[in-house]
Amino acid sequence: MKNNLFKGIIAYPITPFDQNEKVDITLYKKLLERLIVSGCHAVAPLGSTGVMPYLSDEEKEAITIATIEQVRGRVPVLVGVSNLTTEKTIYHAKFAEKAGAAAVMIIPMSYWKLTDDEIVQHFDAVAKQISIPIMAYNNPATGGVDMSPVLLKRLLEIANVTMIKESTGDVQRMHYLKRELRDDVAFFNGSNPLALAAFSAGATGWCTAAPNLIPKLNLDLYHAIENNDLEAAQKVFYKQLNLLKFIVNKGLPRAIKAGLEIQGIESGFLRSPLKPLTANEIEEFKLILKELE
Amino acid sequence: MKNNLFKGIIAYPITPFDQNEKVDITLYKKLLERLIVSGCHAVAPLGSTGVMPYLSDEEKEAITIATIEQVRGRVPVLVGVSNLTTEKTIYHAKFAEKAGAAAVMIIPMSYWKLTDDEIVQHFDAVAKQISIPIMAYNNPATGGVDMSPVLLKRLLEIANVTMIKESTGDVQRMHYLKRELRDDVAFFNGSNPLALAAFSAGATGWCTAAPNLIPKLNLDLYHAIENNDLEAAQKVFYKQLNLLKFIVNKGLPRAIKAGLEIQGIESGFLRSPLKPLTANEIEEFKLILKELE
Amino acid sequence: MKNNLFKGIIAYPITPFDQNEKVDITLYKKLLERLIVSGCHAVAPLGSTGVMPYLSDEEKEAITIATIEQVRGRVPVLVGVSNLTTEKTIYHAKFAEKAGAAAVMIIPMSYWKLTDDEIVQHFDAVAKQISIPIMAYNNPATGGVDMSPVLLKRLLEIANVTMIKESTGDVQRMHYLKRELRDDVAFFNGSNPLALAAFSAGATGWCTAAPNLIPKLNLDLYHAIENNDLEAAQKVFYKQLNLLKFIVNKGLPRAIKAGLEIQGIESGFLRSPLKPLTANEIEEFKLILKELE
Amino acid sequence: MKNNLFKGIIAYPITPFDQNEKVDITLYKKLLERLIVSGCHAVAPLGSTGVMPYLSDEEKEAITIATIEQVRGRVPVLVGVSNLTTEKTIYHAKFAEKAGAAAVMIIPMSYWKLTDDEIVQHFDAVAKQISIPIMAYNNPATGGVDMSPVLLKRLLEIANVTMIKESTGDVQRMHYLKRELRDDVAFFNGSNPLALAAFSAGATGWCTAAPNLIPKLNLDLYHAIENNDLEAAQKVFYKQLNLLKFIVNKGLPRAIKAGLEIQGIESGFLRSPLKPLTANEIEEFKLILKELE
Repeated sequence: MKNNLFKGIIAYPITPFDQNEKVDITLYKKLLERLIVSGCHAVAPLGSTGVMPYLSDEEKEAITIATIEQVRGRVPVLVGVSNLTTEKTIYHAKFAEKAGAAAVMIIPMSYWKLTDDEIVQHFDAVAKQISIPIMAYNNPATGGVDMSPVLLKRLLEIANVTMIKESTGDVQRMHYLKRELRDDVAFFNGSNPLALAAFSAGATGWCTAAPNLIPKLNLDLYHAIENNDLEAAQKVFYKQLNLLKFIVNKGLPRAIKAGLEIQGIESGFLRSPLKPLTANEIEEFKLILKELE
Repeated sequence: MKNNLFKGIIAYPITPFDQNEKVDITLYKKLLERLIVSGCHAVAPLGSTGVMPYLSDEEKEAITIATIEQVRGRVPVLVGVSNLTTEKTIYHAKFAEKAGAAAVMIIPMSYWKLTDDEIVQHFDAVAKQISIPIMAYNNPATGGVDMSPVLLKRLLEIANVTMIKESTGDVQRMHYLKRELRDDVAFFNGSNPLALAAFSAGATGWCTAAPNLIPKLNLDLYHAIENNDLEAAQKVFYKQLNLLKFIVNKGLPRAIKAGLEIQGIESGFLRSPLKPLTANEIEEFKLILKELE
Repeated sequence: MKNNLFKGIIAYPITPFDQNEKVDITLYKKLLERLIVSGCHAVAPLGSTGVMPYLSDEEKEAITIATIEQVRGRVPVLVGVSNLTTEKTIYHAKFAEKAGAAAVMIIPMSYWKLTDDEIVQHFDAVAKQISIPIMAYNNPATGGVDMSPVLLKRLLEIANVTMIKESTGDVQRMHYLKRELRDDVAFFNGSNPLALAAFSAGATGWCTAAPNLIPKLNLDLYHAIENNDLEAAQKVFYKQLNLLKFIVNKGLPRAIKAGLEIQGIESGFLRSPLKPLTANEIEEFKLILKELE
Repeated sequence: MKNNLFKGIIAYPITPFDQNEKVDITLYKKLLERLIVSGCHAVAPLGSTGVMPYLSDEEKEAITIATIEQVRGRVPVLVGVSNLTTEKTIYHAKFAEKAGAAAVMIIPMSYWKLTDDEIVQHFDAVAKQISIPIMAYNNPATGGVDMSPVLLKRLLEIANVTMIKESTGDVQRMHYLKRELRDDVAFFNGSNPLALAAFSAGATGWCTAAPNLIPKLNLDLYHAIENNDLEAAQKVFYKQLNLLKFIVNKGLPRAIKAGLEIQGIESGFLRSPLKPLTANEIEEFKLILKELE
């Protein structure tokens, strides 16, 4: 069975910067440690939350190494290695494997819309160069390409593409994945406000930045599902829903940084052009967090 | 408590025609009886499935009377009374109440996009003329207007607007309704492929034409939810999902008619411009039904 | 040559109501006369502007007869005869022909999305029953169906479907029509803010409610195009553009009624659920009209 | 007057690669020379056509220098300098200015959707570091952000943002720009199939990769517009429309490369994940080119 590595709550750390907009590795490790000890089932550096596309190659490598060092095998590590070119994607995937990642996540980033054949060849070229599993990540809102369920099925024919992360927010995609894919393929939900619907539809896990702020509520939802207790799941989902919607609407890196500050936790700076939430947005966020106390 | 009339599976009969495209009341009653005895919790004549907009005033009245007669109080009856003009909507709502309907369903049909104020005045004008509850029905795909959650909230301030039927297929709307509306407002799902997600989100009922073909599967889903058994609900939902998607994609009146014929049940004719499914589509449908045996 | 009947500016009258929301035929004739004497090339009663779908059969017949009587052959008359059912569409098309219409306009109104085959059969069934030309009208925003260029091409194979009215506002559709359709098919633009682009793309005419308010500016645009004077066309188009956008955004029946009132012309009442523009909208409209003086 | 540098046909070269997917500067210069001598009014390296986002910093610099060297002042050079981060955008803008570019083009590339304020600060930060004009480029299909007309207006308040390139393909945006922006702001069309509509609406120029294949037809369209001869413009536009649509639909780098090969001109290789057109697509393209002979 290929996919038993990842399940449950997969937590996405932010990448903090110092005031000169340089990556702050020391602070990164502190923030990562909070996720590791929170009970989350895995951590995923260099995701969208970690502003991977805004980092240089060297910065990505430093984050990868810092993650493996800090985790010390306590939870599996899923490293984002997406890049516009196939060559660079291979480069980062190989780096992640060598550094000790349990798996890599790849979104087919695009400037020019890629054809299905181009995407298959892209994944295939990467897959041939590594031996750890690949999570194929679909998120048209950030990556610019919407991989159809049919294309996802083609990708899963590549030996080490064994996981799908769906972030379109369309529950019908989940239904398709659950029905059509081979049984040993796990699918993961990447759309925070869809967490309840996705678990109800049979998702294996939830890829989320929310554990930076509310790990217990995220884990409680998963545990209710594990216990086949829909009423409890519904209750804990509605409790956290406003926060989930807020952090998605404001952009995860901006919102997580703001939420950490409200909670009194140092979160560093953003890299331009990304800017902090406005004062009004922060006030709104304070109210949402207060409701959860 | 205003909304305890309707819950569970609300079944939508088709309106059958004879070969001259005249409404066939005798056949209608036979098809309706099947729904009543199937265990469904309510029936809803003159919905989209019943091609209400394609009927003359006299035909609508005949269907309403035939329904009440056939039901004889065994289940509550929800009558569709939507019309482009306010005057005609009032006319049909009053007719339905007098005939014995438990409630009426109103979708704000539009040719010209209506403003929110126009929609509120439309519902308010109807509500003042009847004393039975109104289900406000949102289905932009057929009615041409998408009522925002904010507008739905305004409609619910009208005393006898006590139920919402949401057919956008967007589970986030369900979340909003569940969180924001007053507790004694029930919301119903009208999007067949969203049945599991909607019940998971807390929907009170499912408005569906599917019981014309698979009432037991529809009811089993509801019962699993009532028993807080998500695993069972998931299993029975995936069993019927292909059928639910098929009947929605092909158009409910066409698909239900075809399904009844495949099951050996007389279903009459359609009214032009609606035409029967093609031979290929019928073959596809046979396979889907066969899988359910 | 089949299409030489219609070209240039085809003016759409509103249908005025009295304070009891009954059709006001006397006022209708007065408003229609203004269009006839304005120099417009044709008039088109019972269009969207004339709120055709909100009228009873008897009211539609009264408007048709009143139009023919008032026009007395001075300009060709194009009558809207669209209906949800094929039977009713045939009924009104035959009535219009008998009353003296030069052509009929048909939009495939839909509640249930029609298949391409259903639409072709619908037009074909009507076409067989009349001998005057048919303008096939595409306007998904009001009719609910978007006829693809490929479908429009199929419709034009029906002998008396000789004109296309395109209201999607997509100039690429115009390009397709111009390139792909047989030379003796005329295409007409029904999207007011696209008037310049459509004429530049080769449209034969412009179907518009704007001549109720600014006939000279509408005609000046057409004459500039006829004179191959793009600079003049551009100038007069930009002069009227704000008005064109305003009347489309607010809904033609509401906006034309308001504009007539601002110009001191009696315009009657609307039929519910349609309501007059708000006081703020009327103030905005006054400024737009003032700029044109 | 700030904008008299650019008008007419602004030609976008491709960036050719060798068989190892390294940039081929020698071939680039040959292909660029063809554009310069074709009569086009300007050239624009490192655009979408030039696959700028797929290049390393060093490759971008090499292309910039090669362009300036090859052009030798014969036409103005507009260099694409867009980057996800503000810091890198400034870096490339300064490099382009120093190398001799007449202006730079900036699209607000995004992974995380940028707020309007973030976009304004991004442009402002770049503008302060250079003294040549900036063309703000709007193309949600590639860049992932759709800048509203209101935002474009804000950008134009920055002193050296003096040109707008609109590639949404929405002629109404052109209308807005023409009416609302200050007179000394030029707007350019970047949507090939909109070339006629955009010039009719008053566009100053057309940013296009088509001159790699059909420079004379592109220039003829512009000259017809300059001569206020709409009939001639329409004729030459419809002649080239199929080609314009084809190259956009297939992706400009892939399509231009294929077209050059069909014309017997060496065009190098693409960089993965981009792949050549399929054999069927190339056959289709041959027919389109043959029609133009």
